[in-house]
Amino acid sequence: MGTARVVFDKWEGRYAQRIGDVRSSAVRDLFAAASRPDMISLSGGMPEVRAVPAHAVADAAHGAVVHAGAQALQYGSSNGRVELRETIVELMAETGVRIAAADVVVTAGAQQGLDLLAKTFLDPGDVVICEGPTYVGALQAFSAYQPDIRCIPMDGEGMRMDLLEAELRAVGYQGAKFIYTIPNFQNPGGVTLSAPRRRRLLELAREYDIPVIEDDPYGRLRFEGGHVKPLRALDDEVIYLGTFSKIFAPGLRLGWMTAPQPILAKVLLVKQAADLCGSAFAQVTAERYFAGTRWRKVLQGLARTYAERRDAMLAALEEYFPPEASWTRPEGGFFVWVEFPEFLDTKTMLAEAVEHGVTYVPGDGFYPDGRGRNCMRLAFCYAEPEAITEGIRRLAEVLEDRLELYRAFIAAGALPDRSEGAA
Amino acid sequence: MGTARVVFDKWEGRYAQRIGDVRSSAVRDLFAAASRPDMISLSGGMPEVRAVPAHAVADAAHGAVVHAGAQALQYGSSNGRVELRETIVELMAETGVRIAAADVVVTAGAQQGLDLLAKTFLDPGDVVICEGPTYVGALQAFSAYQPDIRCIPMDGEGMRMDLLEAELRAVGYQGAKFIYTIPNFQNPGGVTLSAPRRRRLLELAREYDIPVIEDDPYGRLRFEGGHVKPLRALDDEVIYLGTFSKIFAPGLRLGWMTAPQPILAKVLLVKQAADLCGSAFAQVTAERYFAGTRWRKVLQGLARTYAERRDAMLAALEEYFPPEASWTRPEGGFFVWVEFPEFLDTKTMLAEAVEHGVTYVPGDGFYPDGRGRNCMRLAFCYAEPEAITEGIRRLAEVLEDRLELYRAFIAAGALPDRSEGAA
Repeated sequence: MGTARVVFDKWEGRYAQRIGDVRSSAVRDLFAAASRPDMISLSGGMPEVRAVPAHAVADAAHGAVVHAGAQALQYGSSNGRVELRETIVELMAETGVRIAAADVVVTAGAQQGLDLLAKTFLDPGDVVICEGPTYVGALQAFSAYQPDIRCIPMDGEGMRMDLLEAELRAVGYQGAKFIYTIPNFQNPGGVTLSAPRRRRLLELAREYDIPVIEDDPYGRLRFEGGHVKPLRALDDEVIYLGTFSKIFAPGLRLGWMTAPQPILAKVLLVKQAADLCGSAFAQVTAERYFAGTRWRKVLQGLARTYAERRDAMLAALEEYFPPEASWTRPEGGFFVWVEFPEFLDTKTMLAEAVEHGVTYVPGDGFYPDGRGRNCMRLAFCYAEPEAITEGIRRLAEVLEDRLELYRAFIAAGALPDRSEGAA
Repeated sequence: MGTARVVFDKWEGRYAQRIGDVRSSAVRDLFAAASRPDMISLSGGMPEVRAVPAHAVADAAHGAVVHAGAQALQYGSSNGRVELRETIVELMAETGVRIAAADVVVTAGAQQGLDLLAKTFLDPGDVVICEGPTYVGALQAFSAYQPDIRCIPMDGEGMRMDLLEAELRAVGYQGAKFIYTIPNFQNPGGVTLSAPRRRRLLELAREYDIPVIEDDPYGRLRFEGGHVKPLRALDDEVIYLGTFSKIFAPGLRLGWMTAPQPILAKVLLVKQAADLCGSAFAQVTAERYFAGTRWRKVLQGLARTYAERRDAMLAALEEYFPPEASWTRPEGGFFVWVEFPEFLDTKTMLAEAVEHGVTYVPGDGFYPDGRGRNCMRLAFCYAEPEAITEGIRRLAEVLEDRLELYRAFIAAGALPDRSEGAA
């Protein structure tokens, strides 16, 4: 809560218990700092919306109001306009998922989908299984319903199935409310769940009868390697979350959920209570934008842009980062995950990095339990390649200062015990 | 849940406990029925958005994207764009409330404000005090957090202060999480809380140290009588919910909350978890629409339109409705509340009304406890005056059928006991 003012709160102790569990997002708090002109942001996962042609969107918005008229301005159905849901059906079909418009609820970004699912499924103390590290917004959404969140470590092929199986054995049949996964270019890990592991995850979920939530914001931003089918393409009981934020623009706040009908019916009631319905105005605009073919070229351009930036980041990491660091090599998406020796605390180091004109996200925000302090998430989606190179160079300078002490320890034969994380 | 399909649910028993308390909105279920061309809708509280000039909105949307560019398409701050919050500050000043942009959080309609406040304050079993009947969307939003909702009856001057005081004595100091009120042209009651009662309500809230939530969607839609200052103008600890849905268009899903800073800080964390941030695209469009002066003429025109429709409804009720019915005479807003003898069940009567080509909302949806079955809400906001007259005439026919039996009872000296509600 770096930007929060300290204010006397006469209502302290009057809030719901969950408020003690609601976390601020370090990522969002950094957005403000990142807006300084000299600052290089490797923190926020903001898409390169400047690549989306403003006039095409402006025309879509203008046309939306003129042609849809009152419909664009009025309350709409809670599940979203059927025209947009049909667009979503087509988008899903292109990734190998066959659904009908009735299987879709339009949400305010995938984030609302996470909140609605948590609200639908979670009582205090319920077990949730997710990757560790995982999306900070999911941790925020889930935490408000006070679950017991268990994180499964990943390797280069994504969530480790041996460790998932061990966790499932520990919680037992129906012992968790759901398994949450970001299989493609994971946020923040950058890794992709391999096809064999996707099949294994679904087998295990069936065996222990636990619903799977597949969060797939980056699936269409693959730079290399072959498309891996979504979990939802392999099992129609998977709950799938999609978003227009990365293939169009986050500013419209449009995402979607597809789920088995009984679950969708509950989610819909919960959505009515949350906001009555989504924005018809934004939905009609998106329909018009996706009615043409230009969006495909824009999306291809975006993927090329992100690929160049990833290349710049990986090259700069190779050139500038110290030998003590290791990092992932994503085939798509927005993020690289960097791990340092336990000794290094990326949270306390952040202020120094900001002084040097570069921001990142400390790793502990991506765990529910304080782990990840020796890690950081680097976003390559937002800065230009030259800025990324310079940002990594600045960050390497800050790291050198910190690592000198570490190296002195090693030289003195006083290497800290990594397994304890103690200095 | 008139439109829901019955589906076998293998996840039954796996949902959160709150799901048992989440209610479907009879109002929303009726929207579908109301879309039949021959149907006269006196049910939905949909604004007359056809009076909002589509081209002005289209131009605002086009300009928003062209001029704000990437800002309109990108993620924004969780509390909303400062430009829109400044617009809100000006709108509030016109009603007598002095606040700063920092006191405002932009929400997805006032409905999201209700959900965020309930999530911030309510643990299961907590007491909430509201008017009875009250807004069905508030009951939906609150119910998801499993509170104990207490309804205070109203008369022609709004919530009865003697009954509020009795309830507060029963729950005691800090014994309720908040008092929720819609002081202007209440939904569904149609009545307005008088100035003396506003002062008394605030005195009582201070005495028992219970926060007040003022929900004011219709405040600027007054047809006659003088402006009554919002509660927030009299006490800066009041939490105020406003919306653009009735002064502009619901399709943008824009509303706002103003609250004391410590509460606003909690609400903001809860909002981040719910949807990260609101739609910058919709916010910039609203800024541009309200930057001109045309919106004032549109709003005056809307108020004139609604006033004509109210007049048509009150005249038709006088002409056609049976002597056993009584109803409120709103000075603004969207709704008239009708009460019948206990004998009459408006819920079972609805199907017959739909057959006769007219819809209304049965009264029990506006209570948490099954009361209100002998009442109905009639909306004059959406249908044309001639349609309203015809709708009331059709409804009177349906009522006559039902009331014949009632009159036969009376004639036979077997008048049902109204206090028991038994037939």
